[in-house]
Amino acid sequence: MRTYNVAILGATGAVGQEMIKILMERNFPINELHLLASKRSAGKKMEINGKEYSIEETTEQSFQGMDIVLGAAENDIAKRFLPKAVEAGAVVVDNSSAYRLDPNVPLVIPEVNPEAVASHNGIIANPNCATIIALVALAPLHRYAKAKRMVVSTYQAVSGAGVNGIRELNQQVGAIAHEKEVEVSTFQYQIAYNLIPQIGGFNEAGYSSEEMKMQNEGRKIMDNPDLCVNCTCVRVPVYRSHSESIMVEFDKEISVEKARALLQTAPGVKLVDDPEHQKYPMPLDTTDQDLVYVGRIREDMSNHTNALSFWCCGDQVRKGAATNAVQIAELVIAQMEK
Amino acid sequence: MRTYNVAILGATGAVGQEMIKILMERNFPINELHLLASKRSAGKKMEINGKEYSIEETTEQSFQGMDIVLGAAENDIAKRFLPKAVEAGAVVVDNSSAYRLDPNVPLVIPEVNPEAVASHNGIIANPNCATIIALVALAPLHRYAKAKRMVVSTYQAVSGAGVNGIRELNQQVGAIAHEKEVEVSTFQYQIAYNLIPQIGGFNEAGYSSEEMKMQNEGRKIMDNPDLCVNCTCVRVPVYRSHSESIMVEFDKEISVEKARALLQTAPGVKLVDDPEHQKYPMPLDTTDQDLVYVGRIREDMSNHTNALSFWCCGDQVRKGAATNAVQIAELVIAQMEK
Repeated sequence: MRTYNVAILGATGAVGQEMIKILMERNFPINELHLLASKRSAGKKMEINGKEYSIEETTEQSFQGMDIVLGAAENDIAKRFLPKAVEAGAVVVDNSSAYRLDPNVPLVIPEVNPEAVASHNGIIANPNCATIIALVALAPLHRYAKAKRMVVSTYQAVSGAGVNGIRELNQQVGAIAHEKEVEVSTFQYQIAYNLIPQIGGFNEAGYSSEEMKMQNEGRKIMDNPDLCVNCTCVRVPVYRSHSESIMVEFDKEISVEKARALLQTAPGVKLVDDPEHQKYPMPLDTTDQDLVYVGRIREDMSNHTNALSFWCCGDQVRKGAATNAVQIAELVIAQMEK
Repeated sequence: MRTYNVAILGATGAVGQEMIKILMERNFPINELHLLASKRSAGKKMEINGKEYSIEETTEQSFQGMDIVLGAAENDIAKRFLPKAVEAGAVVVDNSSAYRLDPNVPLVIPEVNPEAVASHNGIIANPNCATIIALVALAPLHRYAKAKRMVVSTYQAVSGAGVNGIRELNQQVGAIAHEKEVEVSTFQYQIAYNLIPQIGGFNEAGYSSEEMKMQNEGRKIMDNPDLCVNCTCVRVPVYRSHSESIMVEFDKEISVEKARALLQTAPGVKLVDDPEHQKYPMPLDTTDQDLVYVGRIREDMSNHTNALSFWCCGDQVRKGAATNAVQIAELVIAQMEK
């Protein structure tokens, strides 16, 4: 079996760490594995499957000889280094938003548009986490009845802000329990026992950058340029899975029964929809696994003919980021082996 | 000044306790105050403004001589006792859902439809908490441009389940911090660091009872029988204020500027809408006060002409329940004194 040299850019962050875990879980055919991070982390040791690895400082030379580079860094780092990885001959799967809307870069959810991988020019972008979770649930319905309009309200976990977000919720809960002052640094305000209706900066129309991603990325991934999305993104005091309340208007009728049947067999989806027995998706249940749970499917009471509402949850760090990237890398090597 | 004999049915619950506090805060002209509860609580003492009160067991005779009865009990208790209060000559303001949709019972938010109080036949109903918070924000807009359709996703605090809900979140957070098993009794599942997309039981169409209230009560309160509401109600690990993400379609255009101007001067509303400076409503900020904070007002990107989105938060125990009831009682005595 052919094996590949893999580098992870941003290997010490929450998504980078999860990428390592998922590469191992899925037995990705690795020859060399390079863990790239900032100078500050360089030299630190990390044990993976009983083997010791050293964290390496990222330089422009880090990508020589690499076949696959997984990007788990912020936009500025991605833009600085990933073109060097392409020059060095690697195929890049990048989790930042730097290249997502670039017309030369495919934006891929393997359950939705795997065919887009074939057209890459060295970089393939991993979509926004909330967008991945929504579209894994929506795409099987959209294939049956074209999605025209979505009204989405998100309930996004602190893991979306990385290791620091998780730590901040934990520290704040502890401080409150001990009647100490709450420290705020990662989020705009206290997140423990609170909700923050801001993820990213706001544009002139009053939408946050996170809210714009659902429409912009959704249009590209589903090849549906007329899709209109009205999104409200809210940070909630949950550790790791994102949840979304979604109303979709389709171009033709789609019954609840039809939607359930489509989702029952859809890849990457677990239908959890038995309200009578109190079965519905919850973020605690979707944490640390890869499926997007979908439930609470019902006819939109305010638009009986062509609209449905549903509720979905998915692990933001795994399917919303690391797993999706590794799945894309699997498609890339399948293509290389053709 | 005329004073009134007041009884609180369910005086030991979260809403009953808050009613006592708000009667005192607002200097409600009380002659006698009777605190009615179950047999279990009877005889317990409670100090209010330096005066000691005994909790009394509720019986059919408890309402003799009362002018105003505030109901803060569950539906079954409300139905059993409140007709006796009416027979005894009291005017009842009831926070349960037992009488809300009864055509003989006005359903009142003083900022929205104060005139409805005049037509009571002994009972006036206090609306559902999430409905009050949404409509205080929506009514000023609806008066300008008729609201036709709402898509609402709620983020509801544990206080909606009373004292037990607050205690359960607190206990679960403590158990998790000490690596003990989490106990679940008030909610369907663990609520700490989780979200539960169920409040109340589900109907055949898959909507929860809480989700149906927004449409059913909204139509009655705003005298808008054609209003269509698609609502998703979700319990979140926040102690006491409810938050709501709301998209409204109106029958004519209403600009963001117009909406802000209307809300700036609307009774019961605080406009907190300056995203550039990270000012928006948050449940932590609305806790323990009476205003509904409204912000994130923006044109619905998916329906540019006649729809707006906004985000609002309000203290569920106060404006969502106790304060609204006491405000209704103030309207009742104003009418008595005419």
